[in-house]
Amino acid sequence: MKKSINPLNQQSYDIPEIIDDSDGIKDFLSKNVGKKVVVIQGLGFVGAVMSLVCANSQQEDYAVIGIDLPNVDSFWKIKSINDGLFPLVAEDPKIDEFFYNAKKKENFYATYDPICFEYADVIIVDINLDVQKESLENYELNNFDVDLSGFKRAIISIGEHANENALLIVETTVPPGTCEQIIKPIIQEEFEKRHLLFQDFGIGHSYERVMPGPQYVDSIKSFPRVYSGINEESANRTEDFLRTIIDTSKCDLTRLEHTNATEIAKVLENSFRAMNIAFAVEWSRFAEEAGVDLYEIVNAIRVRKTHSNLMFPGIGVGGYCLTKDPLLASWSRKNLFGSQSGLDMSIESVSINDRMPRYAHQRLLEVFGDVKNKNILMLGISYRGDVGDTRYSPVEPLYILLKDGGSNIKLHDPYITFWEEQNCKVENDFDSLIKNNYDLIIVSTGHSFYSNDETFSKIMNLDPLQIYDTIGLFDKEQIKELVGKHNLSVLGRGDI
Amino acid sequence: MKKSINPLNQQSYDIPEIIDDSDGIKDFLSKNVGKKVVVIQGLGFVGAVMSLVCANSQQEDYAVIGIDLPNVDSFWKIKSINDGLFPLVAEDPKIDEFFYNAKKKENFYATYDPICFEYADVIIVDINLDVQKESLENYELNNFDVDLSGFKRAIISIGEHANENALLIVETTVPPGTCEQIIKPIIQEEFEKRHLLFQDFGIGHSYERVMPGPQYVDSIKSFPRVYSGINEESANRTEDFLRTIIDTSKCDLTRLEHTNATEIAKVLENSFRAMNIAFAVEWSRFAEEAGVDLYEIVNAIRVRKTHSNLMFPGIGVGGYCLTKDPLLASWSRKNLFGSQSGLDMSIESVSINDRMPRYAHQRLLEVFGDVKNKNILMLGISYRGDVGDTRYSPVEPLYILLKDGGSNIKLHDPYITFWEEQNCKVENDFDSLIKNNYDLIIVSTGHSFYSNDETFSKIMNLDPLQIYDTIGLFDKEQIKELVGKHNLSVLGRGDI
Repeated sequence: MKKSINPLNQQSYDIPEIIDDSDGIKDFLSKNVGKKVVVIQGLGFVGAVMSLVCANSQQEDYAVIGIDLPNVDSFWKIKSINDGLFPLVAEDPKIDEFFYNAKKKENFYATYDPICFEYADVIIVDINLDVQKESLENYELNNFDVDLSGFKRAIISIGEHANENALLIVETTVPPGTCEQIIKPIIQEEFEKRHLLFQDFGIGHSYERVMPGPQYVDSIKSFPRVYSGINEESANRTEDFLRTIIDTSKCDLTRLEHTNATEIAKVLENSFRAMNIAFAVEWSRFAEEAGVDLYEIVNAIRVRKTHSNLMFPGIGVGGYCLTKDPLLASWSRKNLFGSQSGLDMSIESVSINDRMPRYAHQRLLEVFGDVKNKNILMLGISYRGDVGDTRYSPVEPLYILLKDGGSNIKLHDPYITFWEEQNCKVENDFDSLIKNNYDLIIVSTGHSFYSNDETFSKIMNLDPLQIYDTIGLFDKEQIKELVGKHNLSVLGRGDI
Repeated sequence: MKKSINPLNQQSYDIPEIIDDSDGIKDFLSKNVGKKVVVIQGLGFVGAVMSLVCANSQQEDYAVIGIDLPNVDSFWKIKSINDGLFPLVAEDPKIDEFFYNAKKKENFYATYDPICFEYADVIIVDINLDVQKESLENYELNNFDVDLSGFKRAIISIGEHANENALLIVETTVPPGTCEQIIKPIIQEEFEKRHLLFQDFGIGHSYERVMPGPQYVDSIKSFPRVYSGINEESANRTEDFLRTIIDTSKCDLTRLEHTNATEIAKVLENSFRAMNIAFAVEWSRFAEEAGVDLYEIVNAIRVRKTHSNLMFPGIGVGGYCLTKDPLLASWSRKNLFGSQSGLDMSIESVSINDRMPRYAHQRLLEVFGDVKNKNILMLGISYRGDVGDTRYSPVEPLYILLKDGGSNIKLHDPYITFWEEQNCKVENDFDSLIKNNYDLIIVSTGHSFYSNDETFSKIMNLDPLQIYDTIGLFDKEQIKELVGKHNLSVLGRGDI
């Protein structure tokens, strides 16, 4: 029997071989008679928190069922939720509060049995849809593809069970055209098999703008939303539902004309962001060559409203969205809308960003020389500051390059104890870590923990060593202090 | 004798063959005894208005001399200023007010004689520095170069006359490195010839963010400024001067460490903007293919602060800055800082933007068919809305393509009577123009004049015809009305 282990408490669960949780579902529903049932497919970074938001709606008393697959990666989440331990650790205190409320009200249940879709008034799709990237040895993007088979299977399982009047809302970031060209035909086909009418089934699209971190819940509840439906009725029903979970006194709901439009909006948003970062990369190199500080320049420019989102390039781009959404869009343009052209500039942005950790490594070797057998402390493995999220973190390629080069590396991150992608432990205890001797400290994530007064003075108290800031985390004053003692180099700063 | 003609009133001036305006300068200075003298080199879009701002300083009573070359293009500006007619027509009422004040105070004089630099306490360089672009037949950027010879001659003429203690402030957008590597050595060399010491001469750099239009003066006076000097003393003196002309209660002055840094900041700003537009181009094509409205999508996304500067691509990019500054930067990286690499993404942005009018033309032919011998009315020739400025306007390539294709074209622009680049008249009188019959109306500039209620109802009253909006000027309601009567197509809108 396969096992799924909860990384939060190491508890091990046997994965059931027969998929049947009908008793559990019926038991849950018997405690929630008369409530509308919302089923959320996918209990990852979005779906898990979306479930909490629905279960804590002020406008409507929902019975919320979260469903995920009974496999090694996901089964523990189902069990963990039902056992009273939320499967994500987050900065946001509202997560605990909302989970506590839901457990107390007993209106949130997790399952692996798609039979739950039978009871759903609203089904929300929050599963992953990945891009298969093929990279060259230097991490440059070589090719990519989008395999929809897993996504299609998930939609089929909805079509096999959902009732004729349900409303399906897609939150997953999908290749534009997916609702119209993929989801709708699948549901129609499954309904035909079941001799059901499709006409009253609703399909809407409303993408999330979730940002893990201290505003995790509010990034769902209080953030402007764009939505649409495959027809007007679907759009109306999607709007009605969103009004029960979004705080429309704090943020707008914007309807677009078609699911194609909202699907494009989502990937356009993230492509814009990816491109903003990629844009700054070559300027970072230029600043180094010209002996000036790109961070100061960018700060001076950002005072303009039209330029406030100019980005620092740093070590690279990570996370689940910016690394793949431009590719999803380009794939869609060619494969779903039959264009000869992809979205070249957006693809190029991903490619440039993918090369950044490689450059950070090259520059490290240029500045500090060979680091074979050297003791290195890497500060931060998350893909962005003040968040514990290692998905596609740019720290990973840098770590691999250094490890492969024979360096002895210790890892620290205030938010992470175990690095799943690298299957290794991460230290939380900064004080005990810095008791060791290092040849080089790399600031690899912009956690404010590393630049706060307390940590900074600890770094200043270390014996002189080499420090490599890949983020531009330290401010001007701190740089002056550091340079007075240590051998500092900062990516994008040519003037140290 | 060559003549220079004032396009504002057709007055013709004989260009002097001997450069000697010493009497005029002395006469002017005799009326401004005891005042600090500011000499502004270049009386174009920046220098002319900068002169007014200096002459109207509240903090210091300056005697301001504007100097330009005695050639066909510029001599009339000199005469026009001294004759009491400001050489620029602008929306901003402050222009007239400031010019009136300066003439009344008699503290603003224009000349062509570089001897004026002898008297200058502060010299401000506001001359053009162009990029020589070599384009393919389809307007795609093929190659480019930067010829500094004209710029160097201008600096030499300063070095030949300036006194040892003067402060030279460069406002011109220059290839990064210019103050340090071009200007400083020229002045040093000229001073050596004149047996002067260089040590007390100041060189600062503070780029303008001038925006012709209704806020023209305030875009100099009340807009945040970045500045620097080739040494601390130069930076201090530049700051002191700027404080006398900038309203620091309304905007910040930011000092950067070096002239290289401010020079990079300026071209980085404009490259970012150029890239933001280029980014949206391929999405515009995608939206057309997917049958959705990019303008609505962009508006929905722009509610996010991080995405508020997402641009509509439209017909293309014009004006003096965005079309060349990324190239200046790239040229500098290779030629002044010896890098193997240029700034490829920034160059690509210019190239994409340069191709836009060509695409607008292609789409026009696709949608409306052959336009040979058709009567076309083009609304707007300026490069941006609500401004009368045709420099590098993207309307020009579209106009040429249509003209070369045998269309009969009438031009309208509310702000322009004569199109210098095309050497042809432009109509101001919309009402008489629309009495003619047209096969096609092209909205080529986003002047709000064309979408205001009055003009719009006139367009609605025309016999049904073809309308091609290259800007996305009309809103959703207007589009509905237009589609009810005319045959409308909008670039980036696939759903009409």
